[in-house]
Amino acid sequence: MITETVLSTIKNPDDLKKLSISQMNTLADEMRELIIKKVNTTGGHMGPNLGILETTIAFHYVFNSPVDQIVFDVSHQCYPHKILTGRKEGFTDPDKYLKYTGYTAPQESVHDLFTVGHTSTAASLACGLAKARDLKGKKYNVVALVGDGSLSGGEALEGIDNAATLGSNIIIIINDNDMSIAENHGGVYSNLKELRDTKGQSSNNFFKTLGFEYLYVEEGNNIEKLIDAFKQVKDTTKPTIVHIHTQKGHGLAVAEENREAFHWILPHTLDAKPTEPAEFQEDYNSITKDFILNKIQENKTTIAVCAGTPGVFGFTPEYRTKLGKNYTDVGIAEEHAVAYSSALAKAGAKPILNLMSSFVQRTYDQMSQDLCLNNSPITMLIHWGGISPADCTHLCTFDIPLISNIPNMVYLAPTCKEEYLAMLEYSYNQNEHPVAIRVPSAPLYSTGMKDETDYSVLNKFKVTEKGEKVAIIGLGDFFELGKSVKTELKNRFGFDATLINPKFITGIDKELLESLKQNHSVVITLENGELDGGFGEKITRFYGNSDIKVLNYGSFKEFSDRTPYDELMTRYRLKPELIADDLKNII
Amino acid sequence: MITETVLSTIKNPDDLKKLSISQMNTLADEMRELIIKKVNTTGGHMGPNLGILETTIAFHYVFNSPVDQIVFDVSHQCYPHKILTGRKEGFTDPDKYLKYTGYTAPQESVHDLFTVGHTSTAASLACGLAKARDLKGKKYNVVALVGDGSLSGGEALEGIDNAATLGSNIIIIINDNDMSIAENHGGVYSNLKELRDTKGQSSNNFFKTLGFEYLYVEEGNNIEKLIDAFKQVKDTTKPTIVHIHTQKGHGLAVAEENREAFHWILPHTLDAKPTEPAEFQEDYNSITKDFILNKIQENKTTIAVCAGTPGVFGFTPEYRTKLGKNYTDVGIAEEHAVAYSSALAKAGAKPILNLMSSFVQRTYDQMSQDLCLNNSPITMLIHWGGISPADCTHLCTFDIPLISNIPNMVYLAPTCKEEYLAMLEYSYNQNEHPVAIRVPSAPLYSTGMKDETDYSVLNKFKVTEKGEKVAIIGLGDFFELGKSVKTELKNRFGFDATLINPKFITGIDKELLESLKQNHSVVITLENGELDGGFGEKITRFYGNSDIKVLNYGSFKEFSDRTPYDELMTRYRLKPELIADDLKNII
Repeated sequence: MITETVLSTIKNPDDLKKLSISQMNTLADEMRELIIKKVNTTGGHMGPNLGILETTIAFHYVFNSPVDQIVFDVSHQCYPHKILTGRKEGFTDPDKYLKYTGYTAPQESVHDLFTVGHTSTAASLACGLAKARDLKGKKYNVVALVGDGSLSGGEALEGIDNAATLGSNIIIIINDNDMSIAENHGGVYSNLKELRDTKGQSSNNFFKTLGFEYLYVEEGNNIEKLIDAFKQVKDTTKPTIVHIHTQKGHGLAVAEENREAFHWILPHTLDAKPTEPAEFQEDYNSITKDFILNKIQENKTTIAVCAGTPGVFGFTPEYRTKLGKNYTDVGIAEEHAVAYSSALAKAGAKPILNLMSSFVQRTYDQMSQDLCLNNSPITMLIHWGGISPADCTHLCTFDIPLISNIPNMVYLAPTCKEEYLAMLEYSYNQNEHPVAIRVPSAPLYSTGMKDETDYSVLNKFKVTEKGEKVAIIGLGDFFELGKSVKTELKNRFGFDATLINPKFITGIDKELLESLKQNHSVVITLENGELDGGFGEKITRFYGNSDIKVLNYGSFKEFSDRTPYDELMTRYRLKPELIADDLKNII
Repeated sequence: MITETVLSTIKNPDDLKKLSISQMNTLADEMRELIIKKVNTTGGHMGPNLGILETTIAFHYVFNSPVDQIVFDVSHQCYPHKILTGRKEGFTDPDKYLKYTGYTAPQESVHDLFTVGHTSTAASLACGLAKARDLKGKKYNVVALVGDGSLSGGEALEGIDNAATLGSNIIIIINDNDMSIAENHGGVYSNLKELRDTKGQSSNNFFKTLGFEYLYVEEGNNIEKLIDAFKQVKDTTKPTIVHIHTQKGHGLAVAEENREAFHWILPHTLDAKPTEPAEFQEDYNSITKDFILNKIQENKTTIAVCAGTPGVFGFTPEYRTKLGKNYTDVGIAEEHAVAYSSALAKAGAKPILNLMSSFVQRTYDQMSQDLCLNNSPITMLIHWGGISPADCTHLCTFDIPLISNIPNMVYLAPTCKEEYLAMLEYSYNQNEHPVAIRVPSAPLYSTGMKDETDYSVLNKFKVTEKGEKVAIIGLGDFFELGKSVKTELKNRFGFDATLINPKFITGIDKELLESLKQNHSVVITLENGELDGGFGEKITRFYGNSDIKVLNYGSFKEFSDRTPYDELMTRYRLKPELIADDLKNII
């Protein structure tokens, strides 16, 4: 006889309401097992989803989604919600493991309100939902689920500050597992700790100072306690905080113990046997880390800065300990990270700021006003920039248009290890400009020859191979593609094209471009990012009044979504044979 | 006998230290008179500077600038500081009224640390200064002066949250005059009120929850009391808040009573005699305001949203009262404003979000992630976009590169009243896209003919006059310039150029551009904003593989600074005769 699972009785959240607490606990165990198995197979967010399982069950038991609305902050903790809202096949059937995204997705379910992948947005979004409800004269609950790690973000703080004054129903669940991706940073976390330590009783209460009603739940992984709490606040007419103390990675011992490592895991992390540490392999992260440590030895004002994602740069807990006071993780607070770094440099220190391409999007005004208008000589490393099969929420193709059109910024694109090191040295030692470096997202490439370029002479492109007819300008990690295009042109058309490594994203080498007119009729630009507003268009504008033809290659203005890399490269015609096809009729 | 003023004895802040309290009070009176006279002559920030006079004197009496460092938030309250730090001629000598900027400016004085004009940055910047000091092993005070109005901004909240954990000297003076530019919005203001009402004694204290030491000064315009307070906190080793209760416009009755109107004034506001209200003159603000009111009548979910600057859009206190619950001023919280509006639209309401071009810079990630990725059909009105003689901190030339390269956004550029109305109607009624409209910064222009264009057919340019040889594409409020260029070309070269009103900033009309190839050899683009990453480059890219030549005109990638408009237009060659000169050799 086959034992029927509790989960098999759940088609939608309404079915939950028929269950007993004991059945719901069983359901939680079943779901935990599914999530562990699925995430260990595909990779993904493990800790956040295990921590929020019971909350999600209790939420759907008490509230009536989709009439009652829930917004997930960052939404990497929505797997239990997906299981309970008609998408459990994405967890029970290995063939459908990739059918649903790792984030909330309105196209998948009416229970998902927004496509979300950046943090700190839920309170703001919930405010809008609640105000629209009030304008329509309707009554239902609007709930935001916000992790403690997201609380340090400006958008979250703006949203919470405004939510407090809404004057009607809005419920913000603070999912407090005492952890961001890494450890938390910021004054608000001392208050969360005080509230946890006093079981919510301290008179010193961040949320109450803003005007919220406040309810504390110590056992944030106890379905019964959560149900009690949610019942208390359901249909409230006042802005309300429910502060729940949860355990990241709950129910999976290794994830409970290694909360940072198990925030997001690679496939088969759980299957891996404890082995000898992997052999050291140099990469752009290791080069960056060594560079920073060396510079701290030379100059005690050298300081590495990041905003909540140290793991992305290989800043392990051990490495962070080595950095000591010469390291600031500002938490998820990218705006502050940029302004803070600018001021560090103004005061004579040597900040090296690390940000992911997708998250530097949060800092345009700080780059413009705090940094570039003040010409503060910081080193800003932009990681992961480029075309990728990422989820639509985590694309990294927009940083060139975003950063390179800001006055005073010097944005550099190394093509290899040696150039990266030379650019780091230049940036670190100069005092003239804010310098950003687009750390190649391609695997480490080394020429073996030291780069002696003087980067203080701005906007000087390098001709690496002189040719004729066609000049190929391959930016950063697309310089290698440029080489392949050159070979293709030789094979197809029999001539030697000129190959150029521009190195600078923020300016053009007018002298060089002018000289190309002598024996070239076509210039090709290749960039690993969005064409619109990007690097290539500046080259095209330069040649606008001449007879030179220019073809620009890069990604389109679009939110691609988990699209295979090769498919994107074909779509964008970023392949030697396709580029040669395009050239056929114009050379 | 000439009575010597106290001010005449002040060459730098050290001279202050020799004065008695009584002499400092006299000094305050002298400075107040100078500021009133100067601001009434040139226009500028009146209320903020009158409110902070005594604080500035007390600060420089107690602290030792420039060894001790002070960062002004937004810095429109730095006039007293300028007077005391070697720049008093800018206030005593009418011929030098315009010599110094209205904001802190490092090029003017070692007492100014940063060029600042956007709000909410000081805490972050001060953190960087303080951390650099600590890394260098030095001892001095780092002070941030932050107005209460700036506290709602995400960058301020991120900065304050981080400052609380610095573990060393940082002093944040909260200049609480119970007022932003308009009234304050957000939960934190209920707490400031509670703290004012209890003279700082309430146990419910926002700043203490974050971990700050806290000191309250009720008489924030009393030099003696301020000196006492500053002496108490000087050389503290802990992050410290000094919450001072000041009066905006202090000492000028009309400014004390009309705090919003006297935040920033036009020249000669004080000289104006009470007269009949000026005759009503229609402008883009009045059209916008009427449109919103009419739509509220039609649909009760229509809602006007702004972020702390209602006056810029003509949203007077009377008009705001009319809007009632159909209005949200989120305070200085632009990120929240965008996410909030996106959610309002997702929930079926009709948000009309108003932002200044310069401040929309604070919202790139929210436009990308919360808004465009979710394709929320909001109407977003971008005001003041374009080339201007503004201070370098308030330029409005970057919004086109910023906004138009985000996928899914529809950014429209009306050239006249009728198009603006038609675009508003289109945007309001559709449910497909986020729509931004660049409200013309030129004076109202009316064709008198209703615009019947169907804007749901995206990226359709309009040929307004068919011609030959040269096609002029004049975007938005530069369409009129396009007309003048056409006339100039006719006069100089004798041919009739084609004139095109593109209307859409975010896409190109490929069919039309293709057809131009038949009898044109040159295309000219004109846009009222930065060329780099802007509209024209997309046209140029389209023609990259053809024989058409393209000339792009717009502003350069630079922070111009109080540069006269005509000088900028010459520099950018945005004049019919200069454009005709450029054409001479290529047609």
